Amino acid sequence: MFHILFFEPRIAGNSGNAIRLAAATGSHLHLVDPLFDVEDSKLRRAGLDYHDLAVVTVHRTLAEAWADLPDARVFAFTTAGTTRYTDVEYRPGDVLMFGPEPTGLPEEVLADSRVTDRVRLPMLPARRSMNLANCASIAVYEAWRQHDFRGAR
Amino acid sequence: MFHILFFEPRIAGNSGNAIRLAAATGSHLHLVDPLFDVEDSKLRRAGLDYHDLAVVTVHRTLAEAWADLPDARVFAFTTAGTTRYTDVEYRPGDVLMFGPEPTGLPEEVLADSRVTDRVRLPMLPARRSMNLANCASIAVYEAWRQHDFRGAR
Repeated sequence: MFHILFFEPRIAGNSGNAIRLAAATGSHLHLVDPLFDVEDSKLRRAGLDYHDLAVVTVHRTLAEAWADLPDARVFAFTTAGTTRYTDVEYRPGDVLMFGPEPTGLPEEVLADSRVTDRVRLPMLPARRSMNLANCASIAVYEAWRQHDFRGAR
Repeated sequence: MFHILFFEPRIAGNSGNAIRLAAATGSHLHLVDPLFDVEDSKLRRAGLDYHDLAVVTVHRTLAEAWADLPDARVFAFTTAGTTRYTDVEYRPGDVLMFGPEPTGLPEEVLADSRVTDRVRLPMLPARRSMNLANCASIAVYEAWRQHDFRGAR
């Protein structure tokens, strides 16, 4: 229903948790040039099975990801975003994009013409960013909530 | 504003991510008899500082946690819950309780007289449970959303 895109994720465990998130919610996870081997033992040890891994596509470049998602709106999650994530009216097919740990999306990706809006998760003042998989979980469940968790048991 | 309670968490990294979650949202994290050393190097390596750790209390037993939270409502998150987490009207001071990885809250804790309701996160049918810190993040941000992210920048 929704697409989750991790741009250059660095920590295999976060992507492993995002795979479980995608499987639980019917989302499709896109990993752009991940700096770890998706088949690596850490992901296997995370208890992922084929059923989970079927919801993941690895792209060599961001352009390759866009080619796979030609008409989708793209919401770039960044602490510098001006729109609160709850103020977006999500539609099926939307892409929720997150940057690498711990720095977040770089300026050149935020400036990409495919980015529809820059979105942030509210935090108390002067707080550090949160874990990547946690941020993605919050965002996807808000998008799915707006659609009354269509398809959930 | 809200309390997050992890009953016997087993994986230090999940509690480390929950500490960052608590710091970001103004929540108070309660760890009941964690099977790892809260001062351990993994938590330190997670980049936590004193400011973050100030939002954590470690309790030896669940009874000790209840004594510290005498009048709070307690929502027990479990895949067997009948109430959707979004159908709860959260109030400041509520406790959001989660069980150990990967089995979740045991029956004797779910049956505790302090539990106000058993709550679940919707998932597609036949999906495994999600990561503990991800579940806590989704729950706390829904509770905070209902209060218009009071105090956030």
